Amino acid sequence: MADIERVLIAGEWRNADATGTFQAIDPHSGETLEWTFPVSSRADIDAALEAGSAAASELVRTPVAQIADFLERYAGLIEESSSELSEVANLETALPVSPRFADIELPRTANQLRQAAAAVRDRGWTIPTIDTATNIRSMYGPIGAPVAVFGPNNFPFAYNAVAGGDFAAAIAVRSPVIAKAHPSHPRTSQLLAEVAHRAIQDTGLPAATLQMVFHMAPEDGFYLVSHPLIGATGYTGSRRAGLALKAAADAAGKPIYLEMSSINPVFLLPGALRERGEEIVGELYASAMMATGQFCTNPGVVVLKAGDDAEQFITAMRGRFEAADAGVLLGPGGVRVVGEAVRAMRDAGAELVTGGAPIEGGACRFQNTLLQASGEDFLADPEGLQEEAFGNANLFVVATDDDQLEHIAASFAGNLTGCLYSHSGGDDDPLYDRLVPHLRRRVGRLLNDKMPTSVLVVPSMHHGGPYPATGHPGFTAVGIPASLLRFSMLQCYDGIREHRLPAELRDKNPTGDLWRKIDGAWSQADVATPDAA
Amino acid sequence: MADIERVLIAGEWRNADATGTFQAIDPHSGETLEWTFPVSSRADIDAALEAGSAAASELVRTPVAQIADFLERYAGLIEESSSELSEVANLETALPVSPRFADIELPRTANQLRQAAAAVRDRGWTIPTIDTATNIRSMYGPIGAPVAVFGPNNFPFAYNAVAGGDFAAAIAVRSPVIAKAHPSHPRTSQLLAEVAHRAIQDTGLPAATLQMVFHMAPEDGFYLVSHPLIGATGYTGSRRAGLALKAAADAAGKPIYLEMSSINPVFLLPGALRERGEEIVGELYASAMMATGQFCTNPGVVVLKAGDDAEQFITAMRGRFEAADAGVLLGPGGVRVVGEAVRAMRDAGAELVTGGAPIEGGACRFQNTLLQASGEDFLADPEGLQEEAFGNANLFVVATDDDQLEHIAASFAGNLTGCLYSHSGGDDDPLYDRLVPHLRRRVGRLLNDKMPTSVLVVPSMHHGGPYPATGHPGFTAVGIPASLLRFSMLQCYDGIREHRLPAELRDKNPTGDLWRKIDGAWSQADVATPDAA
Repeated sequence: MADIERVLIAGEWRNADATGTFQAIDPHSGETLEWTFPVSSRADIDAALEAGSAAASELVRTPVAQIADFLERYAGLIEESSSELSEVANLETALPVSPRFADIELPRTANQLRQAAAAVRDRGWTIPTIDTATNIRSMYGPIGAPVAVFGPNNFPFAYNAVAGGDFAAAIAVRSPVIAKAHPSHPRTSQLLAEVAHRAIQDTGLPAATLQMVFHMAPEDGFYLVSHPLIGATGYTGSRRAGLALKAAADAAGKPIYLEMSSINPVFLLPGALRERGEEIVGELYASAMMATGQFCTNPGVVVLKAGDDAEQFITAMRGRFEAADAGVLLGPGGVRVVGEAVRAMRDAGAELVTGGAPIEGGACRFQNTLLQASGEDFLADPEGLQEEAFGNANLFVVATDDDQLEHIAASFAGNLTGCLYSHSGGDDDPLYDRLVPHLRRRVGRLLNDKMPTSVLVVPSMHHGGPYPATGHPGFTAVGIPASLLRFSMLQCYDGIREHRLPAELRDKNPTGDLWRKIDGAWSQADVATPDAA
Repeated sequence: MADIERVLIAGEWRNADATGTFQAIDPHSGETLEWTFPVSSRADIDAALEAGSAAASELVRTPVAQIADFLERYAGLIEESSSELSEVANLETALPVSPRFADIELPRTANQLRQAAAAVRDRGWTIPTIDTATNIRSMYGPIGAPVAVFGPNNFPFAYNAVAGGDFAAAIAVRSPVIAKAHPSHPRTSQLLAEVAHRAIQDTGLPAATLQMVFHMAPEDGFYLVSHPLIGATGYTGSRRAGLALKAAADAAGKPIYLEMSSINPVFLLPGALRERGEEIVGELYASAMMATGQFCTNPGVVVLKAGDDAEQFITAMRGRFEAADAGVLLGPGGVRVVGEAVRAMRDAGAELVTGGAPIEGGACRFQNTLLQASGEDFLADPEGLQEEAFGNANLFVVATDDDQLEHIAASFAGNLTGCLYSHSGGDDDPLYDRLVPHLRRRVGRLLNDKMPTSVLVVPSMHHGGPYPATGHPGFTAVGIPASLLRFSMLQCYDGIREHRLPAELRDKNPTGDLWRKIDGAWSQADVATPDAA
């Protein structure tokens, strides 16, 4: 029997209390990779919860600088291990080493960790609010409990449960992370966790600041997210698994932040098509094909108004899709999921423009696929035609007139993004104004004249949106410092003696330039004390 | 058959589609009051949802000043009707016209509405965040859908579904309110809603900006909070009803903000008791007896360390409780609820110090009641001894030593508040430092040397706390502007043409002094445009 890889629990790489094992698959060949990983039992989860809970109590007392040091050290070590990490991730996901990992995802991952470190040092994410007349002071502070993180299959670094945005946010708020690696890239997660573990040791954080298991039964996931010792959960993945975890967490009153699914409607208004249809073909093609369509922000549904321009647009896109080799998907599960979604959309009335079938042979591939439905079809079964095809399959919806376009806009469920392309001279403005009120409340991020696939890590970024894209419309998974608030709680100090206050709320500004809301106005000054007055 | 009062739906006082009727009770006498109110059917709920949904679309286009005018006009009209409102509320709740209504609750209610108006004009609650290099801009904005509000029995004005904090917050965020009045004070709610309706007409807001029904079956409540047309729900009331509504809303992915129950632990440390025990007796007595104990922030459980000072303290409190006439509770239900809680605590090991039984006769009264349990009892059944007695019954827990005090602090469920009284010279500091880490993560508001019953409406106030005090530890029901965020969504604008942005996010500062986070720093300036550079 092959050696079984070890899990990281309570600061040690130890043999799992395993209920079974699994191996990942190389999507290039469809063949099983060499390493054997354990499926953890509830005993592993219990051990992680206990150690995580103790680490949480330590972390709330740990100096800010030490937590920031860890995040920066980890970023640096990831960069040092960049080649090895990229090669293994390529093996497990078929995403290219370059440019994807070397030039985009690993730099983004390191950048996120460094931004989180900067937020930790800056402290502004706590939104310190001080009312001097009443001596009531409040801030967002640590929940004092571990955070469970479930990472997705499509970003082995930037969303990895041991290194991604949820990890960085939870650590920044002083919660240890109990990570569930995604079973499609366990070796990548293992190497990353080894790097994290080294950074933890280098900077002296509690040993259980990061714990990781590779897999667990669904019911043990429900157990984890609803356990009295867990503080909150971050999840990125499929809607089905997400909703099951949400039900368990909700019933226990445990916060859970989910990024589940999104088809990211793109409205190409008639003036824009007329003005620059060919240009937009190029933009849509590039965006739709990015990572073989396996982005949460993939432009899954493109809505146009019937006419020659729309027909030409679809014909041109069909040409592009047919001319390109189909990319390798993340695994056999990815091929199955795209196939199921295409079937569901066809059952709901969509017609195939091109593609539609898996590609035989070793590699995990599906034909580049376009579908088309009429506005009438869409309105007859909006749910059926909002099936997320997580891969290289996209749907056109062709509406007969402006009224129908408006009805379509009003029929979308919650999404991460919504795009509108319109005429640069304002020809589309009356139609734009009709559509936007419907889209605005249905999407987290609204875009003009650009595709949704770029998710920049800036403070104003919102990577979230109304249900069922996520579980709550007020939180973002990307964008620091806002993403940190998910793993915090609001803490008020009423008449607390000054020396007992957290540094953020004392009279003296703790950094010299922390922005605090004092008596209703943002300020970087110290609180004026009676003595000073 | 008596006339049945009308419900407010779609801007009209109309006959309910009623499944039954009810009458409120005068708690002074236990007798039925004259008015007959309808229990609304699902048809009423559907009509309110439809009209509310249309009003929501109008409200997102309504000028800021008009919404603020309404809130201010409503505050003014409430003040004009103060006498009539107070008299009816006294009839229905037995809470005194003066000082309670005339001097405290009605001024607070008007103040909240005016603070919400100021927040609407100021716009700062939207937290505009602008990154100029990427032209990504975000803010908290309206959800564009009606908000359901369920008010509690104990604040007929300041938390009333048609006038209280949830109402003010929802309207400020441009959501129409579908209110469920509390059936213990329907006449008060009716008069308030009439005042609100007049203010709506005076200021030209959509007629369905406020709708109100008096009662509905529980399953129709579940229907309302989970309906596709509802945006979110605010609820204040019992834990049992709150959790049932939460389950329905959660399953539909609809945000629900609940303020459910809290026993507000108060730790009286040995040095404080020794130093100023008598003074604290007075403070605790006043706080515990406020509104006959029917406050969410009632100091329900007082924890002391065994010793002569503790015994004297309890004896003195017993004297105060026995010397005072028992107040009138909010109704027969209130008497029953206190009795059930006292029985539950006795079953869990608490002993009666004084009181413990309902008072016979017409008025709804229960003996002023004190219970006592040992630390051992508490730790043996922490759940049983954390039963909320919503009224004039309070529990002492007497711990043997510091270790047991710490275990007790670590055994509390989520609460709105937690208080620590300690020696002014620092004698209690080592013990304080042991207890606070446990309490901090279990309560929303931490207090030193004061009782929890004062909930000031200031920006730094946090009236919320971890589950099961509420449904989420990050939101407050009191404190403007933070309470507004509950009924908003995060909205990002990525590359949106400048003239299409909401005013808060355009280059020009919309008020001249709106605080916005531009490129990471808070600023009241305009965004520097390339032309201006």
